Amino acid sequence: MKQYTSLNDIKNLNTLVKKAIQLKNNPFQYSHLGKNKTLIMLFFNASLRTRLSTEKAAKNLGMEVSILNINATWNIEFEEGTIMNLNTSEHIKEAAQVISQYGDILAIRAFPSLTDKEKDTAEWVLQSFQNYASIPIVNMESATDHPLQALADAITLEEHKTVQKPKVVLSWAPHPKALPHSVPNAFVHLMHRMSDTIDFVITHPKGYELDTKVTKNASIVYNQEEALQDADFVYTKNWSSFSDYGKILPMDTNDTNSTNHTNWTITQEKLGNAKFMHCLPIRRNVVAEDAVLDGNNSLVIAQANNRTYAAQVVLQEILMGLV
Amino acid sequence: MKQYTSLNDIKNLNTLVKKAIQLKNNPFQYSHLGKNKTLIMLFFNASLRTRLSTEKAAKNLGMEVSILNINATWNIEFEEGTIMNLNTSEHIKEAAQVISQYGDILAIRAFPSLTDKEKDTAEWVLQSFQNYASIPIVNMESATDHPLQALADAITLEEHKTVQKPKVVLSWAPHPKALPHSVPNAFVHLMHRMSDTIDFVITHPKGYELDTKVTKNASIVYNQEEALQDADFVYTKNWSSFSDYGKILPMDTNDTNSTNHTNWTITQEKLGNAKFMHCLPIRRNVVAEDAVLDGNNSLVIAQANNRTYAAQVVLQEILMGLV
Amino acid sequence: MKQYTSLNDIKNLNTLVKKAIQLKNNPFQYSHLGKNKTLIMLFFNASLRTRLSTEKAAKNLGMEVSILNINATWNIEFEEGTIMNLNTSEHIKEAAQVISQYGDILAIRAFPSLTDKEKDTAEWVLQSFQNYASIPIVNMESATDHPLQALADAITLEEHKTVQKPKVVLSWAPHPKALPHSVPNAFVHLMHRMSDTIDFVITHPKGYELDTKVTKNASIVYNQEEALQDADFVYTKNWSSFSDYGKILPMDTNDTNSTNHTNWTITQEKLGNAKFMHCLPIRRNVVAEDAVLDGNNSLVIAQANNRTYAAQVVLQEILMGLV
Repeated sequence: MKQYTSLNDIKNLNTLVKKAIQLKNNPFQYSHLGKNKTLIMLFFNASLRTRLSTEKAAKNLGMEVSILNINATWNIEFEEGTIMNLNTSEHIKEAAQVISQYGDILAIRAFPSLTDKEKDTAEWVLQSFQNYASIPIVNMESATDHPLQALADAITLEEHKTVQKPKVVLSWAPHPKALPHSVPNAFVHLMHRMSDTIDFVITHPKGYELDTKVTKNASIVYNQEEALQDADFVYTKNWSSFSDYGKILPMDTNDTNSTNHTNWTITQEKLGNAKFMHCLPIRRNVVAEDAVLDGNNSLVIAQANNRTYAAQVVLQEILMGLV
Repeated sequence: MKQYTSLNDIKNLNTLVKKAIQLKNNPFQYSHLGKNKTLIMLFFNASLRTRLSTEKAAKNLGMEVSILNINATWNIEFEEGTIMNLNTSEHIKEAAQVISQYGDILAIRAFPSLTDKEKDTAEWVLQSFQNYASIPIVNMESATDHPLQALADAITLEEHKTVQKPKVVLSWAPHPKALPHSVPNAFVHLMHRMSDTIDFVITHPKGYELDTKVTKNASIVYNQEEALQDADFVYTKNWSSFSDYGKILPMDTNDTNSTNHTNWTITQEKLGNAKFMHCLPIRRNVVAEDAVLDGNNSLVIAQANNRTYAAQVVLQEILMGLV
Repeated sequence: MKQYTSLNDIKNLNTLVKKAIQLKNNPFQYSHLGKNKTLIMLFFNASLRTRLSTEKAAKNLGMEVSILNINATWNIEFEEGTIMNLNTSEHIKEAAQVISQYGDILAIRAFPSLTDKEKDTAEWVLQSFQNYASIPIVNMESATDHPLQALADAITLEEHKTVQKPKVVLSWAPHPKALPHSVPNAFVHLMHRMSDTIDFVITHPKGYELDTKVTKNASIVYNQEEALQDADFVYTKNWSSFSDYGKILPMDTNDTNSTNHTNWTITQEKLGNAKFMHCLPIRRNVVAEDAVLDGNNSLVIAQANNRTYAAQVVLQEILMGLV
């Protein structure tokens, strides 16, 4: 593996998922592989799960880890040809080349602006690092994708499926803040990769259609109850509107005072016997009610645990390519 | 040892102190013990001594260390049953369970609010982590306790006592900011544990009585001069009022313009031949005068050094229980 | 080597540069040297290159690294005899002594105020740490010096010189913010040390004279074009005025509306065949135009890479002295 910026960088998903599951039983078996190799983790946005799981994954492989939180004191210029006499103090050309000299793999987290649709969709930050970095890049959640989460989800699905071809529903859920599309996009990418072994349905209120370049021919059912029927897995996530970019939509677009689709919260009754998945952090009793999260069918803690092995199998494959 | 949230988790204090003192001569003798084990350090509040000494202790044992500073971007919800549509983005139930999967020991620093007496006294944050974490917890200073400091103080007392049963005085001292009760509480806990080998007196202005559930039958003398007489060790610390919770009291409660007990500053004259102890950081010429801190009887630097070995012996005991 | 606070701590510069160049081919050959030794990195100011390169250098030597970013929550008092009842919470006397107990080498970054010339020139922060710390100190850029950068520059010059005695020009360049003198000072120190093998010229607008205690008898040419003639290396850097301390000067001191010396930007035409050097970060099209930085004669990425080996050879020499 040369890099891991999207699921497309995985040649054989099934094999990688199986390797990750094996790793869980013996996470230190490749602890020589990362000797004298450094993972640099660059955070433009805060992180808990990604930070701790990826750091642990790297250390399980014997790597050194350098963590850099980018804040207001170090503004990177991404535009070409700018006269840099304002707020930006370093150009991505220098930044990416320089950092590449201090490490062997560069992991980056950079959320979307949710205001500049064009730049977000073009993966402005991640793509700029790819253009100028000279070491492999790992995407720790970018403007439009979160492939480490998708791989962890693939592992979780493999571990918990009980039927040959389970029905998986991606359901939108309400949230007080406008959130990115990276996680639902990543999950849709995964579902497309697993289309032979999974029946996939997306459900969300009208107006919350994801980028059609991502969803392609995926089945969309606007009635949540209908969509959830006979589901084996319900993957829940809020996201903001893509068409009315980065906005939270009123419930009824004719009535801007309407409440915020609170009836889309996942309840135990809606869930039925399906397994519940969410990338976390989750707002209890907004995205899903307590009974769902505290119930036996919740996989959210298992998903978070699989983040370590998703990151580890990815770093392992990249390290093998470096030797 | 299953955890270290208070001195109560130590079965035999004397044995542990002796082990810590032995460690100082050979700090790397158990460097195999922490191999492939991770200490996660979670800071809700800033730290210098605790951060560096605990990190060093863990690395002396061969552990990996992950450090996470919690700030405004990650607000944890501690209440049960809340509809999380406001400022909190993750519930302690998920947070504690998830973090537990990325490490082997979880160390937490969380200061009191000094406004909500009930929650502070109930150790709201620490107790919530204890309820939901699945790995051993180490208290790096909580709302009402600082057991790593107490253990470091026990080591320091053992190393510097010159009489069979020394007299130890805990003296309040002035400070411009309202401070927590965690350090004086921890020291009082220690004195109760050492009551067979120490004569203990507390002195402070009226109104600064600590929680009586902590002080129990400890001797309190309101006249500082009288209390300090014939002291072998003077442990100095400011704390805010417990009864008028979290407040700095005017010197004379009938006169709210009164100055702030500046005559309680520890001077060389007051100290006499006693050894001076303080957990640091210390405000010079407010808590104690320069002559005290620069004098030969100050143990503050030695105390800070013992923080490493207190943390190390605690982590060592917990690791031994994990294998 | 007992410490590295300035180039003066290097006895034989040439030998050290050669050692550093050898290290690049085999950076892990001394990975046993730092075993069970800890580098504490203390940042009063943000850092990218210094942070990552020094951390990597230490880890290449097998050291543990503890990184502490000092912010507003931990204000150190540097004055003697103060009554600390205001904003400072810990005195440098305690801070330096305590930190010294948690590590084996202490690296410090502390920029100048650019408002208090006397304290900046006296290296108030660095000197205070030197006074009270009990372990070797490494200067990661102080108020008036940046010796790790100078050593990296020496390595870069050695690697890229093609004539016996190259002409090296230090050229001031414009910048929207008032910047410290540490980098140009460090480079001038280096040029004095290399005076046998280098022809050195400084060029800057009138009013931007560096501290004459630093420049001594160095040749200053106020006409940039004249200074750059036949240069082999052009080391470019902005700095604020030293005489009108910390200020950006108007172009014509008789005309305060004058623009900011934009004609001092380094262009490809000015550079000619000379190699271009800069410590980074660099403001493109302000300090130097794109064509310079994207051209084959730019050494800025190589300089940044040499920061690792400069730091490593320094830490190595200090570690050898510790054993």
